[in-house]
Amino acid sequence: MSIKPLLSGMEQRSSRLVASLFAAAALSLAPQVAFSQHEVDTDEGSQGPVKINGNENAFGYSQMAMMAIMQELPDINRYAFEETMELIDAIAMREMVPGDYIMPTAGSGPVLVMAAMAYAAPGKNVVSVEPGYTQLIRTFEKFGGETKLVALNDELEYDLEAVKAAIDENTVMVYLCNPNNPTGTIVDPDELKAFIRDLPDGVVAFVDEAYLELSEGGLEANSMISLVREGEDVILARTFSKVYGMAGLRVGYGVMKPEFKKKLSDFHMGGPNKLGCVAATASLQDPAFFEMSVSSYKSVRKMVTDRLDELGIEYATPHGSFVFMKTGVPIKEFQALMEAENVLVGRPFPPMFDWCRVSIGTEEEMTTFLSVFEEVMKGQGKL
Amino acid sequence: MSIKPLLSGMEQRSSRLVASLFAAAALSLAPQVAFSQHEVDTDEGSQGPVKINGNENAFGYSQMAMMAIMQELPDINRYAFEETMELIDAIAMREMVPGDYIMPTAGSGPVLVMAAMAYAAPGKNVVSVEPGYTQLIRTFEKFGGETKLVALNDELEYDLEAVKAAIDENTVMVYLCNPNNPTGTIVDPDELKAFIRDLPDGVVAFVDEAYLELSEGGLEANSMISLVREGEDVILARTFSKVYGMAGLRVGYGVMKPEFKKKLSDFHMGGPNKLGCVAATASLQDPAFFEMSVSSYKSVRKMVTDRLDELGIEYATPHGSFVFMKTGVPIKEFQALMEAENVLVGRPFPPMFDWCRVSIGTEEEMTTFLSVFEEVMKGQGKL
Repeated sequence: MSIKPLLSGMEQRSSRLVASLFAAAALSLAPQVAFSQHEVDTDEGSQGPVKINGNENAFGYSQMAMMAIMQELPDINRYAFEETMELIDAIAMREMVPGDYIMPTAGSGPVLVMAAMAYAAPGKNVVSVEPGYTQLIRTFEKFGGETKLVALNDELEYDLEAVKAAIDENTVMVYLCNPNNPTGTIVDPDELKAFIRDLPDGVVAFVDEAYLELSEGGLEANSMISLVREGEDVILARTFSKVYGMAGLRVGYGVMKPEFKKKLSDFHMGGPNKLGCVAATASLQDPAFFEMSVSSYKSVRKMVTDRLDELGIEYATPHGSFVFMKTGVPIKEFQALMEAENVLVGRPFPPMFDWCRVSIGTEEEMTTFLSVFEEVMKGQGKL
Repeated sequence: MSIKPLLSGMEQRSSRLVASLFAAAALSLAPQVAFSQHEVDTDEGSQGPVKINGNENAFGYSQMAMMAIMQELPDINRYAFEETMELIDAIAMREMVPGDYIMPTAGSGPVLVMAAMAYAAPGKNVVSVEPGYTQLIRTFEKFGGETKLVALNDELEYDLEAVKAAIDENTVMVYLCNPNNPTGTIVDPDELKAFIRDLPDGVVAFVDEAYLELSEGGLEANSMISLVREGEDVILARTFSKVYGMAGLRVGYGVMKPEFKKKLSDFHMGGPNKLGCVAATASLQDPAFFEMSVSSYKSVRKMVTDRLDELGIEYATPHGSFVFMKTGVPIKEFQALMEAENVLVGRPFPPMFDWCRVSIGTEEEMTTFLSVFEEVMKGQGKL
């Protein structure tokens, strides 16, 4: 053939080379100025608002994830088949389950939505708590199902006896976010295991562990993964948006036995994107970032609750990336007062309209928050 | 307060600075060695297989998109709210419709799946063609609906009269991929417009224009967007995976009037990731890459069809990123014979089991393909 190839071998190699150079350059710059995780989130600078309204990770994300993204950049014109398989393998190894128990998704939200779609039907109900995370139950209702919401106890924790009492012959699912969003409370793992083992036949436990890495004792002490391994009727959801700090990349996953995965798959709309896949896989191989993220969250969280203690402010014991506190001010009003001082706090969580959820930001951000909080509370005659 | 901020102003600025340095460095390297689009897809090098099985873009993607991704890297710990709005604005401007007509999704697949979920019901049917793209109709069937498939005409084009004749009182949707996948044929735009205007009340036209930029005349001549603007019952789907070359990033969108968007939104599982948003927005502002991609596809596509003409091989007139040709060899067997020579070709498309869909790769890749093709066809006594 006389046709001149568009790509010479030399040119083909060069873009790989350049990607590697970039990666090397970034590594050599860090941690002095470049991608040290504490410095990643700089979008707002010191001028912008303190954004502690969306449970985003102010400590950034793994440098290794960033390197993985940069190295993959030349290849995003191709679909993510291999990268998805590699992510499944990495997750399966971490969770110690077979690969066919893992369903990678674009954030963990789709696992919740798919479960709701798969189980909702007129006359059927899902039991959950209030206040709680509502994505699954809202979808369940859209698809004709009903929701039965159980109040939390006085400590704003799950009252598993009350949850159990709400289950009836039409219940097909129990949805528990653990730690609970917005309260941040967790439930004793042994009690939760006993509760799940004791569920009637045909009732699936959906445990949303989005924030569980940040609990006292972490996954090791608190995860329900052992029940999944034992073949119980449990669906777990996890995400790379929180402790791993990659909310914008949209990577999460469900863990469940293959028969459940098959049932949910009818509603699947596609896995994570390729850059998300390689970043998530790299994050799982970066214990240093993970430890930094967990310890930063815990130390700043303690700083906040210590100050709330000094101020005599009531709050729920926080095990996630946020603190839920009683302001005594209607939340819409409180949000506006804080926003006027350049601090964005969480939305209303019915029915607790005079409480506020505040995400944990950096130490600097939370110092600003505490100072503005005190000012606003004093202005409202609450301090 | 005596608490030392984790982030100094200097450090905050530095990671922005480094991102800018990277972008500048990449720009200064290109086009000599770095990110020239012709060199982006190098994963396989010259050793790997020729992958012309998945309608991926072998010409890469926009340098401006890559720069946009790199500049966004420090901020992927935050959700993509603003970036999604910016993408919607950019798309709305391009399509010349209001922003509330645009539904950005993780690839265009979710638009197809959501439409199927929204309209499928027992006793209802969707009319489409065979062979055609099956994602929407498979979902429609999963949700209890029926499909009525109409044969193509002798030119492997839509037979709009036959499609019209298949519509009955239970039809709720007509799905047409234009150009059709796998045949690559298009339909006369005036005939299609008349056909859609003439649809009975309650029948929605879903036109999947994933490949339409590559048709003779392009979007300008062939898109049904004008009918959307006029308020007709039309849903369009478009993607950044094909002519824009970002299949791995998962960005696509639907265009439809707000009442349809509301109906589909019940099934939404989330928009594109943040890097996908900024890359897609940047791609829309990079006419140079778009022109390069379109002209490369067209010139290599012509090289392939010219050779098929010389060889006397039958094929459908291609208007997409692929050519559908008659091999006379059962496709599973043909795939294996080609794979043995390191060339991966398209999967079976029932009922045309002795035809093959070949994606357009680079000139070098298609030169390899043509040489292997000739060899294999001779070996099978077909040449």
